Amino acid sequence: MKLQMAYSFLHKEIEIVEAELGRVVLSEQEMLSSVSLKLLQSGGKRIRPVFVLLGGRFGEGNQENIHHAAVALELIHMASLVHDDVIDEADKRRGTETVNAVWGNKVAMYTGDYLFARALTVMAEIENPKAHTLLAETILELCRGEIEQMKDKYNYDQGIKSYLRRIKRKTALLIASSCELGAISANASEEVQRILYLYGYYVGMSYQIIDDILDFIATEEQLGKPAGGDLLQGNVTLPVLFAMENKELKKKIMGVNEYTTKSDMANLIESIKETDSIEKSFSISEQYLQRALHVIKPLPNGQAKMALYSIAKYIGKRKK
Amino acid sequence: MKLQMAYSFLHKEIEIVEAELGRVVLSEQEMLSSVSLKLLQSGGKRIRPVFVLLGGRFGEGNQENIHHAAVALELIHMASLVHDDVIDEADKRRGTETVNAVWGNKVAMYTGDYLFARALTVMAEIENPKAHTLLAETILELCRGEIEQMKDKYNYDQGIKSYLRRIKRKTALLIASSCELGAISANASEEVQRILYLYGYYVGMSYQIIDDILDFIATEEQLGKPAGGDLLQGNVTLPVLFAMENKELKKKIMGVNEYTTKSDMANLIESIKETDSIEKSFSISEQYLQRALHVIKPLPNGQAKMALYSIAKYIGKRKK
Repeated sequence: MKLQMAYSFLHKEIEIVEAELGRVVLSEQEMLSSVSLKLLQSGGKRIRPVFVLLGGRFGEGNQENIHHAAVALELIHMASLVHDDVIDEADKRRGTETVNAVWGNKVAMYTGDYLFARALTVMAEIENPKAHTLLAETILELCRGEIEQMKDKYNYDQGIKSYLRRIKRKTALLIASSCELGAISANASEEVQRILYLYGYYVGMSYQIIDDILDFIATEEQLGKPAGGDLLQGNVTLPVLFAMENKELKKKIMGVNEYTTKSDMANLIESIKETDSIEKSFSISEQYLQRALHVIKPLPNGQAKMALYSIAKYIGKRKK
Repeated sequence: MKLQMAYSFLHKEIEIVEAELGRVVLSEQEMLSSVSLKLLQSGGKRIRPVFVLLGGRFGEGNQENIHHAAVALELIHMASLVHDDVIDEADKRRGTETVNAVWGNKVAMYTGDYLFARALTVMAEIENPKAHTLLAETILELCRGEIEQMKDKYNYDQGIKSYLRRIKRKTALLIASSCELGAISANASEEVQRILYLYGYYVGMSYQIIDDILDFIATEEQLGKPAGGDLLQGNVTLPVLFAMENKELKKKIMGVNEYTTKSDMANLIESIKETDSIEKSFSISEQYLQRALHVIKPLPNGQAKMALYSIAKYIGKRKK
């Protein structure tokens, strides 16, 4: 099943959001427009806007507010990716070259700043203090996650706890906030807001763990970048943490650096896959997914709830 | 006269703002805390918080809101300086080394991101939609100014109009917003808000022009960085635009690059000072100042209005 099937009933709203995204990133500065448009067109699953729209289905609020929130969330996500790629010195994302790879770090820095500022002007349209507080806190956590990721690079003695905290900040909270912001913008009840936030948090944790697993088990074609990229960039993810329980393997993993050849890396990835690290990681992801499926039980039945179920299940099985 | 004398009656409020600034930049990440604290302690005139506080004197609003706005404005200003220094590859600011010079561009990028995010969480405390819209628009313009500055580097054929637009975005709008935000947070009348915005805009334009003049006529000691730094970094400012009306000089100015020696630079600065470029720049700054002094006439008399007068006059005469 394709993911989009799960929420095909949102297609008109997604079109509106997509059009607004295209409109707001345009700038009188030609270069900025072209960089931003390229980013926008390079794909991305728009999973955050989808969660906002789904959250919005649990209330009766102003549709425009919901669309603004969806656009703002995607812009913040894009901005954080652009700055992330600077820190990771990443060359490729989603099969295309990163902004820093093509135009350098400075352009990437200000493109991120611009997208971020644009998100704020879109958000400012929503006259709801709770929405602003939630978004500000989320952005701050996102920054903290970015900083932790940089600090924890090549730190092979970190525990699973610090990994989980990092992906919470880097990924899960933005998805949690997407779900909740939809509900807030739709004036859904506080109980519904809370449930959606938790759902988003659990799904987000699972999503990032799967992402980190795929970095080892997916093909370069599926990933749009070379496999094992996280490890090469010094990002110590869950499969790595489990694999390092084997001391021999830990030594090899700690030896990875910029001079590691492609074939050495391929061998190392094979060794990691031969351990139970992938299986164990899947199992943790699965625990989060089960919590996500459980927490939404009290929500009123309907298309939106069905979609939340389907998305959570899809995430557990996704291949890219 | 010292600038601080003009608003000595604000000293208690300034202390509150200073203490909150110190508190909010603290982070559980030691490095981030130390970088932020160093930035905070490296001086800076806190002119934006002062304008917020003065704007706040024209209404009867919640004092906490006014303090939050003051803190947020200073954090945004600090964040923008940190990212600016990356783009300018600046080594020194206010006599101390820049974040990028000491810790590199990546740390500078995320320190700016963090300060910016922190500003948003402080701002989120203010439940006033107009305040959020104003701030979002100002931040967007600030980004645009930053980008324009980068784009216009080493562009010696730009006109005075594009210089004025750039400093409007880079400097004047943030000061205008500081004044207006104070008034908004204090629930001052719309007319007062508008007047304070205009005052801030005029004062901001004048302030930046003087800054650009001082880069030529002040000493290294006064500037806390070598004179002529703007020109070295390719920033084409008002005195340069006027000096280039002399074609001989234009040639020399266009020849400045990273290999220009200190003594060649000193000679060039002398040649620029021998033209009427400095005088002409002062005269444009003075025009803005006159407008600032004029626009606040309708404001109710009192300490705050007096302080606005004094600050505007001080800016016209400042030496560093």
